[in-house]
Amino acid sequence: MEKTSGTRTDLARYDNSWYDPGPFWKRTLWYLAGRLLVNTYLPVPNGLKIGVLRIFGARIGAGVTLKPKVNIKYPWFLSVENNTWIGENVWIDNLIQVSIGRNVCLSQGAMLLTGNHDYTRPGFDLMLGKIQLHDGVWIGAQAVVCPGVTCHNHAVLTVKSVATRSLEAYGIYQGNPAVLIKTRNIKELP
Amino acid sequence: MEKTSGTRTDLARYDNSWYDPGPFWKRTLWYLAGRLLVNTYLPVPNGLKIGVLRIFGARIGAGVTLKPKVNIKYPWFLSVENNTWIGENVWIDNLIQVSIGRNVCLSQGAMLLTGNHDYTRPGFDLMLGKIQLHDGVWIGAQAVVCPGVTCHNHAVLTVKSVATRSLEAYGIYQGNPAVLIKTRNIKELP
Amino acid sequence: MEKTSGTRTDLARYDNSWYDPGPFWKRTLWYLAGRLLVNTYLPVPNGLKIGVLRIFGARIGAGVTLKPKVNIKYPWFLSVENNTWIGENVWIDNLIQVSIGRNVCLSQGAMLLTGNHDYTRPGFDLMLGKIQLHDGVWIGAQAVVCPGVTCHNHAVLTVKSVATRSLEAYGIYQGNPAVLIKTRNIKELP
Repeated sequence: MEKTSGTRTDLARYDNSWYDPGPFWKRTLWYLAGRLLVNTYLPVPNGLKIGVLRIFGARIGAGVTLKPKVNIKYPWFLSVENNTWIGENVWIDNLIQVSIGRNVCLSQGAMLLTGNHDYTRPGFDLMLGKIQLHDGVWIGAQAVVCPGVTCHNHAVLTVKSVATRSLEAYGIYQGNPAVLIKTRNIKELP
Repeated sequence: MEKTSGTRTDLARYDNSWYDPGPFWKRTLWYLAGRLLVNTYLPVPNGLKIGVLRIFGARIGAGVTLKPKVNIKYPWFLSVENNTWIGENVWIDNLIQVSIGRNVCLSQGAMLLTGNHDYTRPGFDLMLGKIQLHDGVWIGAQAVVCPGVTCHNHAVLTVKSVATRSLEAYGIYQGNPAVLIKTRNIKELP
Repeated sequence: MEKTSGTRTDLARYDNSWYDPGPFWKRTLWYLAGRLLVNTYLPVPNGLKIGVLRIFGARIGAGVTLKPKVNIKYPWFLSVENNTWIGENVWIDNLIQVSIGRNVCLSQGAMLLTGNHDYTRPGFDLMLGKIQLHDGVWIGAQAVVCPGVTCHNHAVLTVKSVATRSLEAYGIYQGNPAVLIKTRNIKELP
């Protein structure tokens, strides 16, 4: 449209040929199976969802719960440890490994983003960043964890907040970008 | 994963047995009927949607409009007064009562959240908070109202903002968390 | 509900009869075709999606990519130039013209909003604002562009941020509302 100063983006130069998420047949099969059984509002039994994810290479512990309409990009890049909850409409956009610990809660509509672009290059190069959610982390409803972020144990990201940097253990973060607002103290009832 | 200081979350200890949202058969029937007729892009007549919601116990006034793909958890916990609009992709996650007044607008993608967790307890106890939206309130596109919040009459929550506390009448709130940015003055044309 | 000071909203007085988005048959046909072929997770070939959009009046350039589940209100109010990407779950709510330039990236879950309401009038009058995204703009995942906003060339709106005002060329904006945080410099590799 109008004239631009400086160099321009040219998406025709985009080249992600170095990125190999697995064979086409496998991605296609998962796309169909996932859409039919996991990324759906059909009342599919939890055990069947987990079975299908494992068949496609996900490492999933005991006592893991998946709510309806969970969107997972590639199960073979996902590990989830025991007693973790994955809420309704959660979107795990794992172009690369996402590792989720024990007793983690991903609330409804939460998103884990592993893909980014180098906006300083004309070719808008793909950049990937693994995500780790350590034990006891809580990602609030509609919150987003950005590529390369590690949420250390028992960190909390509040509703609709955006974690652009790693979160400290037991820290409670809010906003876009999320900032530390207080510390989480977990106590047994007396 | 790494060692944790302090007490840990243990979701195996989660106990919401005290919470009774109604009989299983009723929730299952609603889940199917709601998915088929309300939480859908099928062009279902507005009157049919409202009829189904009323059959499942929702109290819905005259002149209420529901756009496509409205996700309502339990109709028997919902009341909506006259001339209120519920936009496309609105998510009313009402584990407990949500009361919406007259002339309220819920814009596309807005979310009403009634469920929370006590992150200070190892068992991550479920905490519920009713939501009230009084007459003339406007919840903007993709905005979120958190558990226990009352939006007093004619309050406005702007696009994608998050109401973590109650909103004053005629206040306009923006951000995450939403803060008061100005006052709403409604005038007749001269 | 409680008494209100000042004038009230009365949605029964809402009148958008002046707004004509096209004949009913055309909107209905698009609603069905769009839902079936574009706003879907079915693996529809990109060329077929673009063909259908063009049949309904969209002006779409060469090398444009549409990912699954793209929600477009009215194709006849959409123009997209060469080599632009429209990501998964993008929502183009174009009640009026949306013009997207070359080499633009709309990341997953991004939303373009063209409809607003005059909250200072009892009738809550519909207000429309065209959106322009100039060449090289990047709208991040789950970010929102508000009605009437122009994003000048190579501007960046970060993840889940909300552009309430126009963005300067080569500016990087973050937050809700989005503010300028730095300048984008695009360089060839030495």
